[in-house]
Amino acid sequence: MLEDPYTSFRYPKLIIISGPSGVGKDTIARGVIGKRPDEFYFVVTATTRPPRVGEVHGQDYFFVTHDQFAGMIEQGELLEYAVVYNDYKGIPKQQVRDALASGKNVIMRVDVQGAATVRKLLPNALFIFLRTRSEEALVRRLLERKSETPEGVKIRIATAREEMKRMDEFDFCVVNADGQQDTAVANILAIVDAAHCRVHQQPIQL
Amino acid sequence: MLEDPYTSFRYPKLIIISGPSGVGKDTIARGVIGKRPDEFYFVVTATTRPPRVGEVHGQDYFFVTHDQFAGMIEQGELLEYAVVYNDYKGIPKQQVRDALASGKNVIMRVDVQGAATVRKLLPNALFIFLRTRSEEALVRRLLERKSETPEGVKIRIATAREEMKRMDEFDFCVVNADGQQDTAVANILAIVDAAHCRVHQQPIQL
Repeated sequence: MLEDPYTSFRYPKLIIISGPSGVGKDTIARGVIGKRPDEFYFVVTATTRPPRVGEVHGQDYFFVTHDQFAGMIEQGELLEYAVVYNDYKGIPKQQVRDALASGKNVIMRVDVQGAATVRKLLPNALFIFLRTRSEEALVRRLLERKSETPEGVKIRIATAREEMKRMDEFDFCVVNADGQQDTAVANILAIVDAAHCRVHQQPIQL
Repeated sequence: MLEDPYTSFRYPKLIIISGPSGVGKDTIARGVIGKRPDEFYFVVTATTRPPRVGEVHGQDYFFVTHDQFAGMIEQGELLEYAVVYNDYKGIPKQQVRDALASGKNVIMRVDVQGAATVRKLLPNALFIFLRTRSEEALVRRLLERKSETPEGVKIRIATAREEMKRMDEFDFCVVNADGQQDTAVANILAIVDAAHCRVHQQPIQL
């Protein structure tokens, strides 16, 4: 029951951008921030792998030692984490808490496996699955990644096929079609704006 | 389980715009259509009251006789209906069916009582409650209606207060603030766009 129907409240939202490898999670999440930098906070992942040329600490990743990472796991300070190609990657809770407390919506890119973990902890988040228009388009994007060996690409394609099957675990599906990133970004903004219009809302607590 | 995750489907949505008397349901619903005339169909209410000067049959209302109206009730061809100031008003189902079949989203303004009736029949519709920023703003709008007698206004204000208490029966609340109709229209479009992005959708059947 709503006490005073004229009370405006605005709980910041947590937006999980997921989808198969190669679909463009990072580009689209950054596109959302680019449209409304004052309203969104982009979560930076912590990783134990060394920075690549041009990567900036605190912007692309938080680069941490294995000891630091182990410490965060022990303190329960990671929303989710995974071993990716022998290195650890995870999402520190504190920055999410801080951003939500400042009133910003928090957006994070999480792989399909990780999204399932986050869902268990934070069912009130908005779980958005990004996909391409077709499998061919997805394979093409994976092939264009020059940093991969042919074997690496094969594994990624097989993984992406498996990941696509888990779309039905998500709330929303947004198509990131070739050359139509603006449409994908606009759809994500619509999903967030609509969530802010919900009569019944709950704060994200972590 | 989704058979082919690359299948795009698009079920047209039914949007119920409700809220207290005087909040601006008609203006906002027409504002939505104005923005995207090819995507939305605006439901025309059937009424037994005589047309006022300037009102067009089939555009403002379907003007019907009491016999015709009784016939529609008997056939179960009205989504909901009510007696308003000694005249009947109701929503013929057929135009909603036809519009949905043509692929258009259907938007209708319904009073708070009527929305509860529609909800029982069509729980998959999007139920949007419009409100003003404050009670004062709502009262001011009711007072500005020159077609009302002072007693008429008093009844409308009392009714509006009761209607405001039922906001929590709705899915969404959109603020129609003075001079900010564009924001209200944009929020409704966001709600519809987000609904089209839902992974799990069902067609409206009536």
